[in-house]
Amino acid sequence: MTIHYLEDLEAGQKYGGSTRVKVEAERIKSFAAEFDPQPFHLDEEAAKNSLFKGLAASGWHTTAITMRLLHGSDFKPAGGIIGAGFDELRWPKPVRPGDELRVETEILEVRPSKSRPEQGMVKVRGTTYNQDSEAVQVFVAILVVQRRPE
Amino acid sequence: MTIHYLEDLEAGQKYGGSTRVKVEAERIKSFAAEFDPQPFHLDEEAAKNSLFKGLAASGWHTTAITMRLLHGSDFKPAGGIIGAGFDELRWPKPVRPGDELRVETEILEVRPSKSRPEQGMVKVRGTTYNQDSEAVQVFVAILVVQRRPE
Repeated sequence: MTIHYLEDLEAGQKYGGSTRVKVEAERIKSFAAEFDPQPFHLDEEAAKNSLFKGLAASGWHTTAITMRLLHGSDFKPAGGIIGAGFDELRWPKPVRPGDELRVETEILEVRPSKSRPEQGMVKVRGTTYNQDSEAVQVFVAILVVQRRPE
Repeated sequence: MTIHYLEDLEAGQKYGGSTRVKVEAERIKSFAAEFDPQPFHLDEEAAKNSLFKGLAASGWHTTAITMRLLHGSDFKPAGGIIGAGFDELRWPKPVRPGDELRVETEILEVRPSKSRPEQGMVKVRGTTYNQDSEAVQVFVAILVVQRRPE
């Protein structure tokens, strides 16, 4: 496993990986029951008459699954995957029961920290795709990444 | 329970509520084991030597809890809480075991949809506070809200 220190990263690099997560109807419902109890995340029948026209995962379930996918991907920032914040996060399509998700990341910007010489900020775009290669989530995140120790 | 249609919302309005969620160490760890398995979310000892200097909840656990808090708050947008996307999301302070979280929302902007006359977009800032009224999460979200039926 190759660890990526700040010095190893530059804009334009892309990372993928073979990790997939299959989203089961029962987990969509149990996640929603704990965190996002809305009819279109909880019940197939109720979901039919909603904006989603069928059961759909909570967006927060999709972000959580995406985090799991990132850990399984080839992108291994030194110090872990630590988000300082987000410039953007959206869900272009619903995640449906049976969808199989994967993630791709692209480095957008690398900036050493002036105040903390041991680290820097890396801006990345992460796109989560379903089995039909449709984007179901896009984020632009600012990560804290460690520099290579001297 | 008062439902807020698009026409009921305007910039500057603030919503709170009495709902609180207490964050337990065991749930921090089990959420992380499923979605964000990093040492500082999984194990007290390992977390001591990390950037977080102690066990901290995954940011995605905090967003999920915040969604639960929003459902329990006085802000009841018509059609449900449906996020089209985010302009901003950050975690100014770690969430620790035993923290008791609450959320406040403020309406920033209300804009009727031109293409879909039955709905509009509402920009809101949501701030999640701990028991010491320190902000642990701030987001700016774009929500889809239904207009009042004629």
